[in-house]
Amino acid sequence: MQDRTYIDDCEPTESTTTIAGHVHEIRDLGGIQFVLIRDRTGRCQVVVKDDEHPALTDRVDDLGREDVVRVTGDLVVAEQAPGGVELFPDELVVLDAAATDLPLEIAKAVDADRSTRLDHRAIDVRSPETRAIFSLRSKVIVSLRSWFRDAAYEEVETPTITAAGAEGGAELFPVVYYDREAVLSQSPQLYKQVLVAAGFDRLFEFGTAFRAEAFATSRHVSEISMLDVELGYIEDHHDVMDVQEASLRHALDELRTRADRELTRLDVDLTVPTDPFPRITFEEARELLATEYDHEPEDPTDLDTRGERLLGEYFAERGQPAVFVVGYPEEKFYYRQDVPDDEIASRKFDLLYRGLELSSGGQREHDVDRLRERMVERGLELADFEFYLEGLSYGTPPHGGFGLGIDRLVQQIADLDHVSEAILFPRDPGRLAP
Amino acid sequence: MQDRTYIDDCEPTESTTTIAGHVHEIRDLGGIQFVLIRDRTGRCQVVVKDDEHPALTDRVDDLGREDVVRVTGDLVVAEQAPGGVELFPDELVVLDAAATDLPLEIAKAVDADRSTRLDHRAIDVRSPETRAIFSLRSKVIVSLRSWFRDAAYEEVETPTITAAGAEGGAELFPVVYYDREAVLSQSPQLYKQVLVAAGFDRLFEFGTAFRAEAFATSRHVSEISMLDVELGYIEDHHDVMDVQEASLRHALDELRTRADRELTRLDVDLTVPTDPFPRITFEEARELLATEYDHEPEDPTDLDTRGERLLGEYFAERGQPAVFVVGYPEEKFYYRQDVPDDEIASRKFDLLYRGLELSSGGQREHDVDRLRERMVERGLELADFEFYLEGLSYGTPPHGGFGLGIDRLVQQIADLDHVSEAILFPRDPGRLAP
Repeated sequence: MQDRTYIDDCEPTESTTTIAGHVHEIRDLGGIQFVLIRDRTGRCQVVVKDDEHPALTDRVDDLGREDVVRVTGDLVVAEQAPGGVELFPDELVVLDAAATDLPLEIAKAVDADRSTRLDHRAIDVRSPETRAIFSLRSKVIVSLRSWFRDAAYEEVETPTITAAGAEGGAELFPVVYYDREAVLSQSPQLYKQVLVAAGFDRLFEFGTAFRAEAFATSRHVSEISMLDVELGYIEDHHDVMDVQEASLRHALDELRTRADRELTRLDVDLTVPTDPFPRITFEEARELLATEYDHEPEDPTDLDTRGERLLGEYFAERGQPAVFVVGYPEEKFYYRQDVPDDEIASRKFDLLYRGLELSSGGQREHDVDRLRERMVERGLELADFEFYLEGLSYGTPPHGGFGLGIDRLVQQIADLDHVSEAILFPRDPGRLAP
Repeated sequence: MQDRTYIDDCEPTESTTTIAGHVHEIRDLGGIQFVLIRDRTGRCQVVVKDDEHPALTDRVDDLGREDVVRVTGDLVVAEQAPGGVELFPDELVVLDAAATDLPLEIAKAVDADRSTRLDHRAIDVRSPETRAIFSLRSKVIVSLRSWFRDAAYEEVETPTITAAGAEGGAELFPVVYYDREAVLSQSPQLYKQVLVAAGFDRLFEFGTAFRAEAFATSRHVSEISMLDVELGYIEDHHDVMDVQEASLRHALDELRTRADRELTRLDVDLTVPTDPFPRITFEEARELLATEYDHEPEDPTDLDTRGERLLGEYFAERGQPAVFVVGYPEEKFYYRQDVPDDEIASRKFDLLYRGLELSSGGQREHDVDRLRERMVERGLELADFEFYLEGLSYGTPPHGGFGLGIDRLVQQIADLDHVSEAILFPRDPGRLAP
């Protein structure tokens, strides 16, 4: 490997230091040149004085922005410089020269519109602001995964291509699978459940869900990164909410201590409440919206986007960015448990975070006879669900789980206008490239 | 959560213990009953004596295999029992009764054919042998990921659905993407490279690659789990091999210490050589095959399956399960570096592990002009690669990487006949479900 130190790890010492990265900015003040080098950890100012190093001055004259260079020299404390140090080089090697017609501004926070930035995403991610989003995203995922690992959850991988028919609907992407028709998976729900039944009693999966909806909102994309979790031997859906809450709280806590640089760059103030996340019923949510905001969501069985945003505001003002809404009057999904005379109408919950639905979960129906009945009631073909019903027929513990949208979580943490900004190469009805 | 202890964590104490799981086996010796309970960590023998607990005896009479139960009682050391303990219950609760027509034998190692096992995979994974494969697989992935995390690699996520045209060939699965034609990603290669160019200079991705080939071998599936790695600021492809070797060695070492139970159950003797993995040139490999085995692969620019297997045997006999074959006379992939008068013909390598190609990698071409030339020579439409060429045009460090097949790695470690046995729900030309 080429010898070099990441900029953030540089410490002034007796010996020389080598850094490597892209030329972020060049300033020539006549007699003295400043070259700002950027690597993935930070930026370092390289100082070339004409009278000391005429050969290097000529080389800097030929440098262009985004050239890839390796610079070796003495690191000196300089409080006014970015990172508090400056490098006085003895050697500067150009590893690759960049083209000069950059399609996007990287060095300055110029507001190119989102579409242009996504069209040139491989350039856009060079800007320190965009880079911070993905560094943050990586840390969110690391923290969530570590929570589940530490709690003895097993990571599983379920298929992307699935048989057509099992879940109907226009929201599925058709795939030509050899001589058959297949679809891209909308959710690992059925696989998660048969695995819990088979003894994978605490599992999680970081996977991709595909939705072919023709949306045009700031909350939707066609390829969605999901954290899916399922666990057995629960008492009820509150156990599932406990897991959701503890894992999210852990991730947020970790970010506060380990992503300080990213949060600062993104100008985000991350509050993590010490109090439990509120758990309000669907009816309480509707009542609160009516009383506090005079807002009544049109569909009596659901909350609308505005309602979710207002609930978010209401609880945020009370120091609570996250709130569970528990129990919905009508259960749309056959696999969720619908308990007669239960304290709430169904054992479903949604998690709102800063006013956006991030996650949906609940206790599942593990009685196969009741499950069959509910599927028939909903007009589903039992033959399409053979592996699912078989998997649950041979001893299934009471279980539940949730699916958390990672893209939306990053959107909300980083306070981004649009969920596609939280994804390296997003997909939506109008975007299939890059 | 329902109170219980995983079987492997059970220790005889003064207080009572609760376990939960599936009924694996029942033996009734008249007056005394033995019920073997299975959870994901192990099996525990529950002993019910008729004269002590007539009520429990009746309950055990009604038990069936695979019923889900929770059992509370006193744990007693019993050296002859599995796990060295027995549980004398005060309470036995049936949480879910299983159907009685199990489609597969779970408790005894009966050799159902592979196809039947995969047809009923959710049942098959209940058998301790199959379960051990997936516990091992999970540990392989954990160990690999931890190596890359510790070495400051960033995890990225690239898209599954990509524009048709960029990579031609019959091996692509077509997707109907709204009103357009798209394909499932065959490799994150282009994305990895533009990200390295953009400053993600050490990255990895655990992703899925899709191959629509109509194969019928023991090494191929249609949905492939890959670990893709790319790194910048390399000297040459040997740096990439160093990373490949160190990460794989770490994973194998970890398994030896942390997957003892799984390796024992699968009857696998895992040798991890302390010597460096041999790196032989393509010509040396051909010569060795000719001299030692009188075998000459038909295609003069490649090794064949038999050749790989024989090389594997040759090095395994010398204590080396892994070997790199470096340099191929003709470079098929435009993105790999082809260095004139290089010590070897191209900067490509393959990693063979126990005689199977697990990984392929090399140094990439980072000179965009040369890259364009090579793409045109190969008849590619540059317009289809716009984002790739743009991404590499603005300063790209020398870089390289590899793609490691996780399914094959697990196949080879666990010594499985067929790669689909290493996958929970595999996909091949004949299999789209479960």
